[in-house]
Amino acid sequence: MATIKAQTLKGFRDFEPERVRKRQYVISRLRSVFESYGFEPLETPALEYEEVLLGKYGDEGDKLMYRFEDNGKRRVALRYDQTVPLARFIAQNYQTITFPFKRYQIQPVWRAENTQKGRYREFLQCDVDTVGTGSETADAEILALVTDCYKALGFRKSKIVLNDRSLFGNVPSPAVLILDKLKKIGEDKVKQELKAKGFDEAILDQIKAKKAPAELQNVISLAEKLGVDKNSLVFEPALARGLDYYTGIIFEVEAEGYNGGALGGGGRYDNLIGSFAGKPIPAVGFAFGFDRIIEAMEEQKLFPEELNQSATQVLVTVFPDYEKQSIELVSNLRRAGINTEFYLEEVKLDKQLKYADRKKIPYVAVIGPEEAKQNVVTIKTLKTGEQEKLSQEQLINKLSS
Amino acid sequence: MATIKAQTLKGFRDFEPERVRKRQYVISRLRSVFESYGFEPLETPALEYEEVLLGKYGDEGDKLMYRFEDNGKRRVALRYDQTVPLARFIAQNYQTITFPFKRYQIQPVWRAENTQKGRYREFLQCDVDTVGTGSETADAEILALVTDCYKALGFRKSKIVLNDRSLFGNVPSPAVLILDKLKKIGEDKVKQELKAKGFDEAILDQIKAKKAPAELQNVISLAEKLGVDKNSLVFEPALARGLDYYTGIIFEVEAEGYNGGALGGGGRYDNLIGSFAGKPIPAVGFAFGFDRIIEAMEEQKLFPEELNQSATQVLVTVFPDYEKQSIELVSNLRRAGINTEFYLEEVKLDKQLKYADRKKIPYVAVIGPEEAKQNVVTIKTLKTGEQEKLSQEQLINKLSS
Repeated sequence: MATIKAQTLKGFRDFEPERVRKRQYVISRLRSVFESYGFEPLETPALEYEEVLLGKYGDEGDKLMYRFEDNGKRRVALRYDQTVPLARFIAQNYQTITFPFKRYQIQPVWRAENTQKGRYREFLQCDVDTVGTGSETADAEILALVTDCYKALGFRKSKIVLNDRSLFGNVPSPAVLILDKLKKIGEDKVKQELKAKGFDEAILDQIKAKKAPAELQNVISLAEKLGVDKNSLVFEPALARGLDYYTGIIFEVEAEGYNGGALGGGGRYDNLIGSFAGKPIPAVGFAFGFDRIIEAMEEQKLFPEELNQSATQVLVTVFPDYEKQSIELVSNLRRAGINTEFYLEEVKLDKQLKYADRKKIPYVAVIGPEEAKQNVVTIKTLKTGEQEKLSQEQLINKLSS
Repeated sequence: MATIKAQTLKGFRDFEPERVRKRQYVISRLRSVFESYGFEPLETPALEYEEVLLGKYGDEGDKLMYRFEDNGKRRVALRYDQTVPLARFIAQNYQTITFPFKRYQIQPVWRAENTQKGRYREFLQCDVDTVGTGSETADAEILALVTDCYKALGFRKSKIVLNDRSLFGNVPSPAVLILDKLKKIGEDKVKQELKAKGFDEAILDQIKAKKAPAELQNVISLAEKLGVDKNSLVFEPALARGLDYYTGIIFEVEAEGYNGGALGGGGRYDNLIGSFAGKPIPAVGFAFGFDRIIEAMEEQKLFPEELNQSATQVLVTVFPDYEKQSIELVSNLRRAGINTEFYLEEVKLDKQLKYADRKKIPYVAVIGPEEAKQNVVTIKTLKTGEQEKLSQEQLINKLSS
C-alpha cells in the first residue's frame, strides 16, 4: 500500500477547514435569502440513467459527461447540471407538485473540462428556479431575489445586465453568438467577425439601437416595486447568453471591481422543463457562479473576520496533575455555549500554545498549580500576548461577549 | 425525448423540500456540536483514483464500489466511505496539518448495495475523527461529543454500549464475528454457531465474564468528567463491530424505543490512517447513521413543529388592480425579515388560498379594494380560518413574534 501515491484527480479538490467554512458561509447566506422568498430546497441523485442526461447539453456536453456502465449493466451518468434533473423530477412527480414550484438546489456537478483553463471537474452549482408560470412577476421576483443575494454576501455595487431574447428577431443564430461577445472583445472585433462570417456588420448597430421590449420594461418596473434599485438594472441589447436554451428575459450579474466575469446568470427558458413531461412548462431561473463568488469575496475581503480564525474560541491546556481541573473547565465552558478545545495530550505548554497559534484559536486558558491554588484561570490572548487571571465566571463572561 | 422515462435509479433518491429541510436541521445541529468541540469541516472529491480506494474495504467493498474508466483513460472510483479519503488527504498534506487533527465530514457515498434490504446506493455519511493521537482523552472526548450530539437532536434516553477489542485476546477472528452477533440472535444461537464452526461454546461465557480493561475504565472515567452520565455508558464484552479495522475502544449508540439498530458507531483504529503516509498514525472516530437518525427522529417526533410546515410565514395574494399595494407589502415584510411568498399569477383568490394550504404556509395576507381604502391588510390564519384586519405595522409585529 505504501506504493500508492496519495493524490487527487486533476480538476478535483479537497476543501480544507477554512475553505469549507467560507463555502458554508456563502451557502447559508444564500439559503436564507432563498427561503425569505419562499424557495424550497430540492436534492437529486448524483447518478441518473444516462438517457435522462444524454443529448440535453449538446455534443460538447455528451463529450464532457462522466458516463459508464454500472454493476447491473445499466448505462448511468453523473449529474452534469441541476436543470435536467429538475425537469426529470417534475415529470416524475407532476401530480403531487404544487405549481408554481419554486425550488433551490445546491449540489456538486461533474464535467471532464479542460483543466488548463482553470476550470474544475467537480464544482458546486447553486440554482434557483420558478417552474410552472410564465408571469412577468416571476421574472421580476428572480431579479429581486438575485439583488438581495449579492447584497447579503456583502457586494455593495453589483448590477444586473439584462436583455430579452426576442430582441434578436430574425438575426441568424451564428450572428447572435458573435454579438454576444461584444463585452469581451469590443465593437471592432465583433464587426470584423460578422463580416468574416458573411454577415452584414450593420447588424451590430441595429441591435445596439434597440429599445427594451415592453415585456422587459414591465419586468423591470415590477422589480423596482419589489425593492430593486433602478440604476442597478442595465439594459444590454447585445447580451444573448449563448443559444437556444433561453426563450425570454436573460440576465447576468456583475460586481464592481471584479474582473473574473459574470458572478451568475439566468433567464426564462420555457421549453426545457416540460420535455420529459411531454407538455409545455414555463420556467425562469438563475445560477450563482459559486467559485467565482468565493474568489470575488476574497478579493474584496467580504468574508467576516471570524472566518479567518478557528471556530474554536478557546483552547484549554492540560497540565500534569491538574487535568481534572482543566477537564471541569472544558465542560463548564462548553455548557455555557463557548466553542472549546481541550488539548488531548500531556505535552509541554509551549507545544500546546503553538497548536492554538497554528489553528488560529484566539484564546488559551491555563490551569496550573498556582491557578488551582487561587481557584482562577490564566487566560492568554494570542494576538497581543496579554494575559490575566480570572475566575471561571469572569472567563465565561469575557468569552460570551 | 418524450419516450425517455422520467425515473431515478434503484437505490437513489430525490429529496423533496420537507425532507431536505429535515436533513439540513440534523446536519446543522450536529455541526454546531462538532464545532463546540473544535472539530473542523473537511470535504474530499466524489471521485478518487481507483487504486486509492481499491482493496481498502475487503472483497465485498471492491464488488460494491462504483468504478470505471474516465475520458482520460484513468481508472477512477466513487467515494465509498470518508475514512480512506481522509487517510489519503492526511498523507498528501502531512507537512502542513496541525496534529491532533480533528475533522468532521458530511458527504454522500455510493455503494451498489442490494436494495432489497432497504439499503440505499447513495447515502450521506457523517463522521468525526481525531487523528494523530492515541490518548485516552481523545477517546473520552469522542464519547462526550457523541453524547452531546444525540442530546442536541432531542434523544432523551440514548446509551453508548462499549468495549475494547483487546478483550478478545487470542479468540480467533471467525469466533469473534459470531460473538458479535450476541445482541441480534441471542445466547443460544451464538453457542450453536460457535459449536457448528468447531469452536468451544464456552468462549461466550468466558467473554461475558470479562471485566472492562483498565484503559477502557480510564476512558469511561474521563468521559464522566467531561459531563457524560455514567449510566449511559454500558460495557458490553461481546461487542466487536466487525473485524480487523478497530484496534482499541469500540462503541455503538442505541436510542430507547428505536428498534432499527444502532444509530451510529465508532472506535479507535490505529492502523488505517497511516497506510498512505507509510507511518503509524493513531485515530479514533465515530460515524453517525444519518438515515436511521432521521427515521428514529420521525418515529419519536423529535423534529420541531415548524419543519412540518413551509419555511414561508405568509403568502401575499394578488388582487386585480391592487397588485401595486400587494407588492409593496411583500417588499416591506421581507425587509422586516419575514419569509414571504408573493403569489405569482393573477388568478382567483380561492386558488391562491389553496396554494398556501397545500404548501402549509400558515398565514395569507390579502389586499383588495376594501383593504386598500382602509389602508389595512386582511390576515387569515389557515389552520383556524380566523381572519382580522391589521395595519402593516401590526401585521409585521404579529408575524415577527
